[in-house]
Amino acid sequence: MVEIGAWVIEGLWITGIVAFAISGALVGVRHNLDLLGVLVVGLATGIGGGVIRDMILGVHPPVSFTHWPYWSAALIGSLAVFFFHPSLSKIRTFEIVFDALGLGIFSAYGAAISAERDFGFITAVFVGTVVAVGGGVIRDVLVNEVPGVLTRELYAVSAIVGATVATLITQLTGHLLIATAVGGVLATALRLTSYARGWHLPKPRSAS
Amino acid sequence: MVEIGAWVIEGLWITGIVAFAISGALVGVRHNLDLLGVLVVGLATGIGGGVIRDMILGVHPPVSFTHWPYWSAALIGSLAVFFFHPSLSKIRTFEIVFDALGLGIFSAYGAAISAERDFGFITAVFVGTVVAVGGGVIRDVLVNEVPGVLTRELYAVSAIVGATVATLITQLTGHLLIATAVGGVLATALRLTSYARGWHLPKPRSAS
Amino acid sequence: MVEIGAWVIEGLWITGIVAFAISGALVGVRHNLDLLGVLVVGLATGIGGGVIRDMILGVHPPVSFTHWPYWSAALIGSLAVFFFHPSLSKIRTFEIVFDALGLGIFSAYGAAISAERDFGFITAVFVGTVVAVGGGVIRDVLVNEVPGVLTRELYAVSAIVGATVATLITQLTGHLLIATAVGGVLATALRLTSYARGWHLPKPRSAS
Repeated sequence: MVEIGAWVIEGLWITGIVAFAISGALVGVRHNLDLLGVLVVGLATGIGGGVIRDMILGVHPPVSFTHWPYWSAALIGSLAVFFFHPSLSKIRTFEIVFDALGLGIFSAYGAAISAERDFGFITAVFVGTVVAVGGGVIRDVLVNEVPGVLTRELYAVSAIVGATVATLITQLTGHLLIATAVGGVLATALRLTSYARGWHLPKPRSAS
Repeated sequence: MVEIGAWVIEGLWITGIVAFAISGALVGVRHNLDLLGVLVVGLATGIGGGVIRDMILGVHPPVSFTHWPYWSAALIGSLAVFFFHPSLSKIRTFEIVFDALGLGIFSAYGAAISAERDFGFITAVFVGTVVAVGGGVIRDVLVNEVPGVLTRELYAVSAIVGATVATLITQLTGHLLIATAVGGVLATALRLTSYARGWHLPKPRSAS
Repeated sequence: MVEIGAWVIEGLWITGIVAFAISGALVGVRHNLDLLGVLVVGLATGIGGGVIRDMILGVHPPVSFTHWPYWSAALIGSLAVFFFHPSLSKIRTFEIVFDALGLGIFSAYGAAISAERDFGFITAVFVGTVVAVGGGVIRDVLVNEVPGVLTRELYAVSAIVGATVATLITQLTGHLLIATAVGGVLATALRLTSYARGWHLPKPRSAS
């Protein structure tokens, strides 16, 4: 039973990596990069969050560099985008969806794994949020755009909600899998709903 | 006596965090980001230097993630800016002042703490300088501006001066508090004076 | 004999640092930065790759901060550029050449040192590639350009080739010096040839 749970969680994490890699590779295609450029942005976005997590937790070298399923998942996702991407007019929508999926899984799992290691509540939420937004920041800085976390609808909010829920569930029940699944679905749904409805947080007064 | 000194130093460091967080949040307001965007830039700028320091020294997870006074200081400073910021025409000036204050404290304290750990002279100056300019680089890269350290008047010079003085005092007397105070005041004063007077270092010849 | 080999490798690594520092300082001159701005970009580019390597391997503080030949090599290279740089019209060419030299040495040595520490084949290639492109990414992000690794001819490919060859030679023979020399020459030659001939990888279909 524990075995199966561990496998499902590994599968969820890899799903998050692939989702972020796809979002990164799509940005690369939109910027008209060549094959390697697309792969580099895809890889950096897919494994960036995990590398940041390992830097924070002090894991050397980062697991994403040594555990082949992680980087090969990011590689395959990026290659798939290069060869089978949608037409340019639709890329933005696909970017948003895959980015939201990665955001949800990374925020929930990053927080749950930190909570399991007995970090405090706030620290776990913090790590989850940083892991979730980190890959996207790397992606956007690489192609010289202002990171989506600063401008997209309820982006950081969704990550914080996912991380908070996952931390709570992990601390109360110890169920990493349930924490990741519930927190991840919530964060992804909130991000996509806010995008579809155009929900925004208030802006500073004199600048509005 | 030692107790009180430690408290004062903690207070100084938190002052630096708040100052940098305010400078970051002001940049966010100037870029017309929403509430969370302003908070993210403010937090990243306020605790960025400390996170870089912990990455260099190998402290996992970074103290800023686990010690609540640090991140809450950055959060409160950012929130205050969001709700009570000056009119846009004056934001630039406030940015410069708070940034200079953070620069001074971080350069001096970063160097002093490294010198106390028996790093060599140059390494301590180096760490202090990197800690001081790191948060600002994160802030400026996030909003897609060329980092102030590359273009502002005597910016890196001020950090180097503050770090050097603080390292010397720490190595000679062991007084962390005096080192931080003297180095910090010097660096902040030099930075603000250079700004007010428009002091610049020479530019490369053919490009002038 | 071993002694001499170690010295030659140290010399190669320092050559790579100087080459990257020169490329960074040239970019600074091209952007019309002042003296400290040029030095900051030069230093960050020269030692950036090594710092990233140490972050990955968990070396605290980074060797580049504590071992004076490294940072002083970067400093001297940057200073030399500031005072004796070519005319602006020729800077681009010099940038490409020194950047290619740094790319070659860093990719090969980064991979060889990882292979010597018994990391797996893929991990060693990965570390070498990240070390080689890392300094350049820092340089380009600092001055707000899209990193060359995403757009330049066979840039990442050259680093991967250099890292792969160096890893193979290290794993088969244990000769760090030969691995670094052969891998480095190959990567530099491939990068320069691709630049001179305008070789590009294919671009995504609908974006071409």
